Amino acid sequence: MESKLKYSEDYFLTAGETDARGEMPPTLIVERLIEIATRHANILDIGYARLAPMDRAWVLVGVCYSMERAIQINETYHITTWIESTNRFFSERCFRLEDANGSIIGYARSTWAVIDIEQRRTVNLNFLHADRLHVDGEACPVARIRAMAAVDNPDREEHLTFRYMDLDFNGHVNSTRYIEHILNAWPLEHYTTHRVSAFAIGYRRECLCGQSADLRIADTGETSAVDIVRNDERVVTARIEWIRTLQ
Amino acid sequence: MESKLKYSEDYFLTAGETDARGEMPPTLIVERLIEIATRHANILDIGYARLAPMDRAWVLVGVCYSMERAIQINETYHITTWIESTNRFFSERCFRLEDANGSIIGYARSTWAVIDIEQRRTVNLNFLHADRLHVDGEACPVARIRAMAAVDNPDREEHLTFRYMDLDFNGHVNSTRYIEHILNAWPLEHYTTHRVSAFAIGYRRECLCGQSADLRIADTGETSAVDIVRNDERVVTARIEWIRTLQ
Repeated sequence: MESKLKYSEDYFLTAGETDARGEMPPTLIVERLIEIATRHANILDIGYARLAPMDRAWVLVGVCYSMERAIQINETYHITTWIESTNRFFSERCFRLEDANGSIIGYARSTWAVIDIEQRRTVNLNFLHADRLHVDGEACPVARIRAMAAVDNPDREEHLTFRYMDLDFNGHVNSTRYIEHILNAWPLEHYTTHRVSAFAIGYRRECLCGQSADLRIADTGETSAVDIVRNDERVVTARIEWIRTLQ
Repeated sequence: MESKLKYSEDYFLTAGETDARGEMPPTLIVERLIEIATRHANILDIGYARLAPMDRAWVLVGVCYSMERAIQINETYHITTWIESTNRFFSERCFRLEDANGSIIGYARSTWAVIDIEQRRTVNLNFLHADRLHVDGEACPVARIRAMAAVDNPDREEHLTFRYMDLDFNGHVNSTRYIEHILNAWPLEHYTTHRVSAFAIGYRRECLCGQSADLRIADTGETSAVDIVRNDERVVTARIEWIRTLQ
């Protein structure tokens, strides 16, 4: 059992996957984290095959990461994941990102809950974690995702409508698509001198195809706060830390 | 040399990669084709490493595919690629998609040219292909991409503006992003009863971040024709064949 408490995979950043800077974009970082989390849950037998017959599913409550540098085009990288801790309703899954030589590039943290698919309500995790067997326990230097204050006085707003290619197989807007819409709120010029060094996102409500929402953006120095608001309800909250680059 | 004339890889369709139907979307099909084409070109030493020092690069002129069925969530699939033929200016690269048992799911074809990066002009391919050593020659049942007639009398039009996350590492709109914008022109309801069974796209001009364009769409029975038009110039042309499904 012990050997399964951590799970690792190697990846390669292809030319088609990079952003205009030739670097790994935040959308792909989060996609890879979700992917490896899903695989590790399957290996631990706390994944889809175990939950689906109970009409239950894991949902991503939030994810955040901090990167010392960007992963570059044609670079091999390595992700390791483990469950840091778990309580009655939330599982804290962490990640370490390393380069081909084992040097640390960054860390990430995610918070997951299990819902009853019909009722759309969270379920007590004791049915999976009563004996804590799956918890590796290694601490992760990325702080837990805190509740984010609402962006009440945005510097600017953008309007968007979710469309077919935004959807995942459940028919909800895909977790990474919110990130894409958020990043699109800055023009190319901004990205020629800024890179995302840390990113945090909290998922509060599910959005559907055809629904419209507003991005409310507040910029304070090298940090941006973003709310995605649908009918006066905050459905997604995000924080971006920017680092200035000379590119 | 002979053993390198075909190149294959296995893939797995993860939950995060599917569309709302739980199937492999056209965007990902084309992304995978470009990816494996790039790898095979590198193996044949006619890829980035060989061309970059000459200030030359491969550009995708067009791609088309025809699928007998959709690749499903959590399915393993297999892609094989080879160069079918080449002439002075174009290389015809083909693909076969198979399931885990080796049954054929579909075929695809792509047309590539080499450009001089500074002059943005196509270059004679004889410097790579003089002895035809790289041509496998196996024919591909997907017909060559023909010039597509302009959509002069669209049934409807949609306006779009390209944004940061549309860009590739060259700063141009990514080949697969055009496909995404095209597919977004239909509502969810259409996709509950229709699936893309064949898709063809031709790339005529490169678009940049911040540029706006119009989608001109003509529907004739189970086929749709789409032009992406920027300043009265057709930059991308596409054809979609739909198949009715009961889902």
